[in-house]
Order: sequence, then C-alpha cells, then structure tokens
Amino acid sequence: MQGKQEDNVIYIGSKPVMSYVLAVVTQFNNGFDDVVIKARGRAISRAVDTAEVVRNKFMPNVEVKDIKIATEMIEGREGGGGDKANVSSMEITMKTKA
Amino acid sequence: MQGKQEDNVIYIGSKPVMSYVLAVVTQFNNGFDDVVIKARGRAISRAVDTAEVVRNKFMPNVEVKDIKIATEMIEGREGGGGDKANVSSMEITMKTKA
Repeated sequence: MQGKQEDNVIYIGSKPVMSYVLAVVTQFNNGFDDVVIKARGRAISRAVDTAEVVRNKFMPNVEVKDIKIATEMIEGREGGGGDKANVSSMEITMKTKA
Repeated sequence: MQGKQEDNVIYIGSKPVMSYVLAVVTQFNNGFDDVVIKARGRAISRAVDTAEVVRNKFMPNVEVKDIKIATEMIEGREGGGGDKANVSSMEITMKTKA
C-alpha cells in the first residue's frame, strides 16, 4: 500500500510520446480520477504533447485540471564539485470530467 | 492603437532565454499588468524557463496567473502538398501581484 499515492504520477523522459500516452491512459483505466504528468527541462514540451494526445485522441472525457511550473536545483553529478544548476519543471494534472 | 492588446504577448522562438526574459520585463515596466508568453513545440520548455527566470531573478512581485495548453494545426510549407501536422502550444500568463 505504501507509495500508492505516487502510482498516478508519470515522469516524462526521452522515450517517444506514445510511451507516456499509454502510461497515462493505463492509469486512468486502472481507476485513478487524476493522473499527474511531471517533466523537467527539455522534456517539458513532451509532457505537453502527452497531455494533448491523451485528451484529443484517446480520452475525450479527460481534461487538464491544473498546470504548475517551478524551478528545481539539480546537483552536479561529479562528487564534490559542488556544481548546481537550476532546471525548470512542470506538472500537468489531468482528471476525468465530472 | 490597433493591435494594442497584442503588445503584451511575447512569442518564444529559438533565441537565448535571456532575450525573452528581457522582453517580458520590459513589457511589465511599460505598465502592463499582464504579460502572455506563447510558445509552440520544442520552444515550450524555453517559455517555462522564461517565466521562471522572470519570477525568480528579476521580478519577485510577478506571479503566474494562468497556464493553458492546446494543439494547433500547422500547414506544411510546401504549397499544394496538403501536409498538416499537429503541434502542441502553451500560453503562460504572468501578472503583477495585487
């Protein structure tokens, strides 16, 4: 049961958009009323593509509930370097229409 | 006077983020209460970067009022080919805090 709340979050990476569309549709079909699409940096445009394809092509009864943008600080991967970079992030929450 | 309503719209292209940040800050300094940042396709992540940099680095009294996503149909550039493609678009409306 632990982590159940996070099951409805889809993280967008560098796979084709259809991979994420399928993941979102699956979570709605699993019974979630809300599905959250999260992305950072250049994957943000793919997150928007995912939401739009879900809504326009697969699930006309699903709509965008909320969109948030933020800035996250990423630590450099090289240990001890202390490099930090800011990256933009986005969360698109989709929900089934009432 | 015509087109005045559109003066507060910044279209994101392929220039560096700072170009668009400067454009947004300038429009607020020109007296607009709202500035709309519009982008399509891969420029969408740059639009989010622009909004975040404006808010975090330059104008702490500005916040995100609304974010909309949509799909636009683009006609192919080759005449007569009839090629059409869908592209995702985003509008971020920023406003000065009350």
